[in-house]
Amino acid sequence: MDSCDGEVAWRFGAAKPELAAADGEIRMRALVSRIYGCVDASDPRPVVPLASGDPTPFACFRTAPAAEEAVTAAVASGKHNGYPSATGVTEACSAVATYLSRYLPYELSTGDVVLTAGCNHGIEIMMAVLATPGANVLLPRPGYPLYEARAALSGLKFLHYDLLPEKGWEVDIQGVKALANENTVAMVIVNPNNPSGAVYSSHHLAKIAETARELGIMVISDEVYEHFVFGNKPFVPMGVFGEIAPVVTLGGISKRWMVPGWKLGWIAMTDPKGILRKKKIFASIIVYRGISVDPAAIVQGAIPQIIANTDETFFTNAMNVMRETAEICYQKLKGIKGVTCPHKPEGSMFVMVKLDMSCFCGIDDDIEFCCKLAKEESVVISPGSGLEMKNWLRISIAVDPPLLEDGLERVKSFCLRHVKPIIMNQAS
Amino acid sequence: MDSCDGEVAWRFGAAKPELAAADGEIRMRALVSRIYGCVDASDPRPVVPLASGDPTPFACFRTAPAAEEAVTAAVASGKHNGYPSATGVTEACSAVATYLSRYLPYELSTGDVVLTAGCNHGIEIMMAVLATPGANVLLPRPGYPLYEARAALSGLKFLHYDLLPEKGWEVDIQGVKALANENTVAMVIVNPNNPSGAVYSSHHLAKIAETARELGIMVISDEVYEHFVFGNKPFVPMGVFGEIAPVVTLGGISKRWMVPGWKLGWIAMTDPKGILRKKKIFASIIVYRGISVDPAAIVQGAIPQIIANTDETFFTNAMNVMRETAEICYQKLKGIKGVTCPHKPEGSMFVMVKLDMSCFCGIDDDIEFCCKLAKEESVVISPGSGLEMKNWLRISIAVDPPLLEDGLERVKSFCLRHVKPIIMNQAS
Repeated sequence: MDSCDGEVAWRFGAAKPELAAADGEIRMRALVSRIYGCVDASDPRPVVPLASGDPTPFACFRTAPAAEEAVTAAVASGKHNGYPSATGVTEACSAVATYLSRYLPYELSTGDVVLTAGCNHGIEIMMAVLATPGANVLLPRPGYPLYEARAALSGLKFLHYDLLPEKGWEVDIQGVKALANENTVAMVIVNPNNPSGAVYSSHHLAKIAETARELGIMVISDEVYEHFVFGNKPFVPMGVFGEIAPVVTLGGISKRWMVPGWKLGWIAMTDPKGILRKKKIFASIIVYRGISVDPAAIVQGAIPQIIANTDETFFTNAMNVMRETAEICYQKLKGIKGVTCPHKPEGSMFVMVKLDMSCFCGIDDDIEFCCKLAKEESVVISPGSGLEMKNWLRISIAVDPPLLEDGLERVKSFCLRHVKPIIMNQAS
Repeated sequence: MDSCDGEVAWRFGAAKPELAAADGEIRMRALVSRIYGCVDASDPRPVVPLASGDPTPFACFRTAPAAEEAVTAAVASGKHNGYPSATGVTEACSAVATYLSRYLPYELSTGDVVLTAGCNHGIEIMMAVLATPGANVLLPRPGYPLYEARAALSGLKFLHYDLLPEKGWEVDIQGVKALANENTVAMVIVNPNNPSGAVYSSHHLAKIAETARELGIMVISDEVYEHFVFGNKPFVPMGVFGEIAPVVTLGGISKRWMVPGWKLGWIAMTDPKGILRKKKIFASIIVYRGISVDPAAIVQGAIPQIIANTDETFFTNAMNVMRETAEICYQKLKGIKGVTCPHKPEGSMFVMVKLDMSCFCGIDDDIEFCCKLAKEESVVISPGSGLEMKNWLRISIAVDPPLLEDGLERVKSFCLRHVKPIIMNQAS
């Protein structure tokens, strides 16, 4: 054997263009890790993590005891060590169908639900299934970059419609109509909305459904933040309007139960007229799911008990904390020059905040803002550029209230320090 | 709102050719479920399930107490509810690296291991990463149909090389050389082998590595059955020969710990010369993994304890049962006319058995054999046709020994009943 490889012409290693195209999600992650890298290790204060929507490090957001007990019992039973069926453990699909049906004007059956390894897996499946030659999907801007990444990887084209900050981040319905063409097959909505914190009214959802019907497209409703609302608007599932246009609902236990790491989501056919079945979309979902990964059977097996045994006070308490952090965030931001929050968050874990770059001295854009903020104040925030929203920030409010308050005080000090003197003078 | 949808021309629902092409895996499942459908519900005897490699329904194959305890502890800690890092929980990657290094002539580092949501997920990732325009991969026949399914979905071409039953199901090295062309980037081996039950010798693995080097291709070594050996040959990881040609090792806890439903696997760069890094294969794996699903964090978090605390007797006992079932299977099959087992199983959970159709009356092929066997004897076996091995059977031996014995007795009765009179006379 020759220990020198000089003479072997290895044939692998060609560039894979789809992976390069799928780097939107990666770019956001890379940006956030670059910003973490700016934090000054000698700062004695705790780092305030306002970039990612992961509330699990905070004691106030610990999952429900019933959820932990249900998984422990599923492990102890020894009944969930083997392969689950290809669409999910039947009792779990059934429990999810019953759970979703509580909020719908019709009943879902067990067969309407496919379990996924988290909501991201549902996104993957839908982007793959819709990627027929030439097809395109309408995605919201700002949005969740995994949609673009998975669409690109599957060869599904996408077009962006805008969410309107001046209208509470509602969907730009006229924009959607102008954007759609004969190859458009679906539009994605995210409700409660990540990253804006908006919750859509029943009236707005009905308009979306009518628009989809007019265009002949389905609605993919990303409801991973279902029931994660703490403002004045109730959560209304898009499936309520499934008679107007067929709706594929994506969801999971990640957010409401605060267990994103458990990787248990679902795809529900909230389509009472059965159009998705008739048009073979459901069959394609089943085929793709059959050659894709399974969610862990020990979590699937726990789902009926997680749903049945979680005390309502767990949800109430969690939403009380979120209401408090939304209020802290909104009030604190109001008092900061150069920063505007167009809409008080009412749902999900995020809020979008606009920077007025003309107010700041020596800071050119949102990325520079976030890097300097991390360096000087040990506060980590995602720059909007990662979501194609240059000079915006995406701030997570799923944070322990005192830490959030501390973090936003630091943002205020930072802005005061970098605001242009003329602006300072106007303010004083 | 109009309740009649007659006038809406829904734009979605075009056929997706890649999904149709990816149906090999589905075909095998469909075949097995068709055969289950043949079972006569009025038969009072228990169904003997010899089709799937899932030992978990049997008490003798219950996972190690240490494994269950480790997951329970990970849940109770509350530390594994959030998002794990994009390549896996660091302590878990590190534990897997150390575990794999025990059997290698070099040390893997934490960064050489990427955790996956089961070994199937590792297959998905590798087939996607290698799917550059025009590239092809060499797959074994008989094999594991998910390779073909995921390759087809990713647009990766594949060519089949044969495993040679007359040579203990070794890789047909000359066939591999004849098959490879300038677009071949990798060959897949499965060792211990599913579906043949073969375990490859160190000598054979070295020849595979030298062949790969000669062809300038990498080896993807599917070792999901690592250490699952009960014959005379020890398990040798392909990574031992990683200096000759770069090896990507796929593995997981599914088989050795008897928990396929926990969905925890890994991809290890068993490539001491760092060629996969240099050729950007590793970077592509990381990008794809970053936009793919995560394994459940509560299982990832348990991995260090699962590996550290599982008593050696658990493995010994499990392999003792497998040795017993391999012996039962081999001896029982010997006495059945029309059926040949060319190689006694020494590893994995399966064995391949050849049917001599000329011996049987009124049975045309393996599928008909399996359907009639299910109907008359309530024994369910996978037909080889699902693996492109017409007139072979794939039999699972990961079954409670008395049930396996009962099942093979029924196969014998069935064959005796259907064998041609002339053959019967020769035999008597």
